[in-house]
Amino acid sequence: MRESELLSHILHRSADLHGSGAIVVGPGDDCAVLAPGGNARLLLTIDQLVESRHYAPGTPIDLIARKAVARSVSDIAAMGGTPRAGLATACLPPGFDRANELFDRMAHWARRYGAPLAGGDIAAFSPERPGPLVLTVTIVGAPHAARGPVLRSEARPGDSVYITGRAGNSFASGRHLSFEPRLAEGAWLCEALGDRLGAMIDVSDGVGRDAGRLAAMSAAAIELDEAAIPLHADVRDPRAALSDGEDYELLFTARGDVPNACPATGTPITRIGRVTGGAGCTILLRDGSRADASTLGWDHAA
Amino acid sequence: MRESELLSHILHRSADLHGSGAIVVGPGDDCAVLAPGGNARLLLTIDQLVESRHYAPGTPIDLIARKAVARSVSDIAAMGGTPRAGLATACLPPGFDRANELFDRMAHWARRYGAPLAGGDIAAFSPERPGPLVLTVTIVGAPHAARGPVLRSEARPGDSVYITGRAGNSFASGRHLSFEPRLAEGAWLCEALGDRLGAMIDVSDGVGRDAGRLAAMSAAAIELDEAAIPLHADVRDPRAALSDGEDYELLFTARGDVPNACPATGTPITRIGRVTGGAGCTILLRDGSRADASTLGWDHAA
Repeated sequence: MRESELLSHILHRSADLHGSGAIVVGPGDDCAVLAPGGNARLLLTIDQLVESRHYAPGTPIDLIARKAVARSVSDIAAMGGTPRAGLATACLPPGFDRANELFDRMAHWARRYGAPLAGGDIAAFSPERPGPLVLTVTIVGAPHAARGPVLRSEARPGDSVYITGRAGNSFASGRHLSFEPRLAEGAWLCEALGDRLGAMIDVSDGVGRDAGRLAAMSAAAIELDEAAIPLHADVRDPRAALSDGEDYELLFTARGDVPNACPATGTPITRIGRVTGGAGCTILLRDGSRADASTLGWDHAA
Repeated sequence: MRESELLSHILHRSADLHGSGAIVVGPGDDCAVLAPGGNARLLLTIDQLVESRHYAPGTPIDLIARKAVARSVSDIAAMGGTPRAGLATACLPPGFDRANELFDRMAHWARRYGAPLAGGDIAAFSPERPGPLVLTVTIVGAPHAARGPVLRSEARPGDSVYITGRAGNSFASGRHLSFEPRLAEGAWLCEALGDRLGAMIDVSDGVGRDAGRLAAMSAAAIELDEAAIPLHADVRDPRAALSDGEDYELLFTARGDVPNACPATGTPITRIGRVTGGAGCTILLRDGSRADASTLGWDHAA
């Protein structure tokens, strides 16, 4: 089963959770939104990092720990939020003797992003049924106080579509291990644009696929302009850059003027398309033809 | 490295987290306690469930899902809290085609215990580096409104030590798959005993080892009376029952009178020892000798 189908299945069965009880926003967004009491809102997300799936064997422990934390932190950034605390787990391969260093470095990176580790769990595969290293990081965060959580479902026809930074070639370049989650940019967009900020997502499965998610969740259509998408200098195949995973840039929609860089960090912000009525996500390719963007991406469980 | 050493390491490095910022209680208790804003307090816990480590291959999907959820729910019970929402992850072995059913059943059990799944993540092992099924469940809960979170560190000399239900033989009997987390009992203890309730933990690694944890976290000593510990009828080796893991009963300390059963559920409550000054946890054995209780237990990562 493809991850997208499974998530859709979970989402469908959880439709009645939205707005009920402690859960304000359930499965299907970058984070869940909880109402723990009073008017407070809390962001909650978890991601896994699996050896040989999300990083190559032999990757330095510090970069493994960094990516495990940064992936989940990026989900908080995609809601415009601020990390507050984290949990980490590890399931260790037989003979793995660097658990101390691994948790030290996860603790370091979690703290660096404002989410000190408040707990966790450690287990080991049975020698009879071994497996590679599996990490999870849960992050609890606070949404922007004035703007509130930025959902995937709030793109409106007439919005423009933007991306922070540059896309493509994340794996081959090693950027998937050392990216900086766009926390400052996400919070600044909330501050600067307020209600003019529409929907937002972090690009983990390719610009095409993730733009398709914004469109689907917003019950709108998105048209991307391939030639407008800013690519890293080391991208050799521009088409592949649309489907490369793990850019961890913010893809968002907005109404009205949007600055072309985040003042605090200098991160460029580029207009790459628009939201229209209808459904689906298409890309206007450089040769003038159009493609279905939702097929251009990476499925973690495919 | 033993899990106990690793957790001690994490705990040590996180000592400065306690009482700082959003984290009221950090690593080392059944749950972390967060202060998400205002006076509200939130419980947060995560546990892993690993095939061939925590359950045998061939276990029905429903029981796997149930145990994955119930383990984390039990951590909330051990704080006297109430589950509010959950997150679930799965890392799937190559060819595993029952992810839908697995998430359905995790969603079912999470809902049953008051913690509907608000999100999660799914990944698959690379075929080149396969592994068995690895699940995690995060639970967010609310502490008892009046009593507040029940910590492991609040046993005082003069307290008696109690256990809910019966211990022993959890694996061979299959009870480790079908136990009922002691949510009702934990909340009722908060209600009935208030500040007379001292420290509490759920028995996951054996009565001996977990009583040792209460003693260590409380900077006190605990003396258990082996003959007083209530055992299941199918226990063949009473000594082994002290070190069997995964009873998921509540082990707690209290001052003054404690009823001998929870009125709402009928779960028996038995006095099995006392808290004194000093350090360590000893067991008075049936033959009149004493043993170091902290060696009688099960280490998930040993």
